[in-house]
Amino acid sequence: MTRPLLLTTGEPAGIGPELALMLAARGQLANTVAVGDPQMLRQRAALLGLAVEVVEAAPGGLDISSPGRLVVWPATLRAPATPGVLDPANARYVLETLQIAVDACQAGQAAAMVTAPLHKGVIIEGGFPHFTGHTEWLRDACGVDEVVMLLATDAALHAKNPLWQGSGDLRVALVTTHLPLRDVADAITFERVTQISRLLAADLRRQFGILNPRIAVCGLNPHAGEEGHLGREELDTIIPALDALRADGLDIQGPLPADTLFTPRHLAGVDAVLAMYHDQGLAVLKYAGFGQAANITLGLPLVRTSVDHGTALDLAGRGTADPNSLGVALSLAQRLAAQRASTLAAP
Amino acid sequence: MTRPLLLTTGEPAGIGPELALMLAARGQLANTVAVGDPQMLRQRAALLGLAVEVVEAAPGGLDISSPGRLVVWPATLRAPATPGVLDPANARYVLETLQIAVDACQAGQAAAMVTAPLHKGVIIEGGFPHFTGHTEWLRDACGVDEVVMLLATDAALHAKNPLWQGSGDLRVALVTTHLPLRDVADAITFERVTQISRLLAADLRRQFGILNPRIAVCGLNPHAGEEGHLGREELDTIIPALDALRADGLDIQGPLPADTLFTPRHLAGVDAVLAMYHDQGLAVLKYAGFGQAANITLGLPLVRTSVDHGTALDLAGRGTADPNSLGVALSLAQRLAAQRASTLAAP
Repeated sequence: MTRPLLLTTGEPAGIGPELALMLAARGQLANTVAVGDPQMLRQRAALLGLAVEVVEAAPGGLDISSPGRLVVWPATLRAPATPGVLDPANARYVLETLQIAVDACQAGQAAAMVTAPLHKGVIIEGGFPHFTGHTEWLRDACGVDEVVMLLATDAALHAKNPLWQGSGDLRVALVTTHLPLRDVADAITFERVTQISRLLAADLRRQFGILNPRIAVCGLNPHAGEEGHLGREELDTIIPALDALRADGLDIQGPLPADTLFTPRHLAGVDAVLAMYHDQGLAVLKYAGFGQAANITLGLPLVRTSVDHGTALDLAGRGTADPNSLGVALSLAQRLAAQRASTLAAP
Repeated sequence: MTRPLLLTTGEPAGIGPELALMLAARGQLANTVAVGDPQMLRQRAALLGLAVEVVEAAPGGLDISSPGRLVVWPATLRAPATPGVLDPANARYVLETLQIAVDACQAGQAAAMVTAPLHKGVIIEGGFPHFTGHTEWLRDACGVDEVVMLLATDAALHAKNPLWQGSGDLRVALVTTHLPLRDVADAITFERVTQISRLLAADLRRQFGILNPRIAVCGLNPHAGEEGHLGREELDTIIPALDALRADGLDIQGPLPADTLFTPRHLAGVDAVLAMYHDQGLAVLKYAGFGQAANITLGLPLVRTSVDHGTALDLAGRGTADPNSLGVALSLAQRLAAQRASTLAAP
């Protein structure tokens, strides 16, 4: 029996629930079970006029969704959800949907988890002051020391840009994620750069099936510090870290200036770019393929992908949001889960 | 009489001299006079087998280049130049070529100046320890308080990307430029954000002829600080600065998360993006149009454009470097100079 993907429907005031319903209506939720409040999903379908039957998953068995039919693993809202209106009372509900998905993946009931967007601020207000995002929550829930945030575009789209013909997926991983810019430089340590690079290389092998991944690493400072004229972190920290990784046999290039790394000459043959911080890597990634990219958490004992956008409260309840990124996240999760299973099965 | 563009040929060990010669050989240096060492340029032409006659400009008159003929305003190397090999002895020569161009523009002898790349490190080593780049040098040489670095792609190329059809030039200006990342947060002050925004708006009017420019501004922190959860600079500094600008009638949007700003939904109708720091804005810009973008310095009493790349010492002397960005910089300088003249002439 094929194990399903679990799709957490995220912040109930955001676009997550309707994206799941839109894909179900189009028959694009193959092999997927949603996690959320069935009543809320029924109301949202009715509001949007989507002909989708919302069915609760049978306890113990995970029947999968089919065109016009959304199978839901139920979680219960704490307060009624209105599109566009955040309610901290539902923070605990959102986290429960994540816990359900993690437990099912860990127990081998599901092949992978895919997450629709949540709203960090309202989770914090709802009684979880240390919450900093899906990625960090999953790290703690799975009891691992560190994870890596990777975003990837859909190669098919990327190839349509005449500048980029023949190139593959653009993949960008981050050394630091949701950190005030002021704190980034101090967070770039030898330990962190080497640990994140090793996790990235390991999961490019395990989940993407790339045997000898080539990673290009951005500098921290403009022009990668220009031999110390524009900052010393490259000389003092990043170059020694990359040298240590190379000595261990990893195929690592850099540190390279971030403003020229994302060009055909430097990206040729590169399987992933490692950026030092959020906006250095993600502005390019989302320019290259907004709505066609997915977020992948590496370093977990399970496969997790996510959309590349937020809750879009201003669009919620209108049915005009674009479910493309969620579709990319689902198909990528399917691919990664299959690769991971075959890597695990290899002798 | 049409006044020429002056093209400083930059670091003599880099690709600047050969880019000028390649464009001259192709007849793509219309209305241009190069500034550099004529003997070095002759040797470089011979090395590359380029059939270009290098002619010194007559004192007092600026005859312009024509196909196969490069007119040069002479400056004298301090030491022989070898492609790929930096020599601090020539730092003073490189700065002299810039001074010649500034003086000629200020005296009304030239319409604009276009700069080929120099190498910051070797200028510093050559006895100019405070040198931080063309842009800052020009600010001081022209005696202005502040300038703005703007990069722009060629609209024609941008439009070829299917994601971006119908959009115009992508233009990205920077609040801070060549600063270690560690120092960026403290450099983002109310005064600096308002001053740079005003200079940007003024020169979008004066040089680009955009009467009511719309500017989209990036936040400093990831997700533009997410209401203070990821840094307070947006709340404490950037939002008050943008409010003050709006109160003065400027059309300003933001602060917006940098990782989603560069997408069609947010860029529609935007004339320029203002990024808070180097890699936040330039990684996208150069991905979008590497080799098809030019650098423009706003806020000067003259028109100055530049290539978007460095000295490429590893390519120098081979004739394989791509002169496209220099071509874009030259044609943009011509366009900006004409617009500026017509704005000045308007009643």
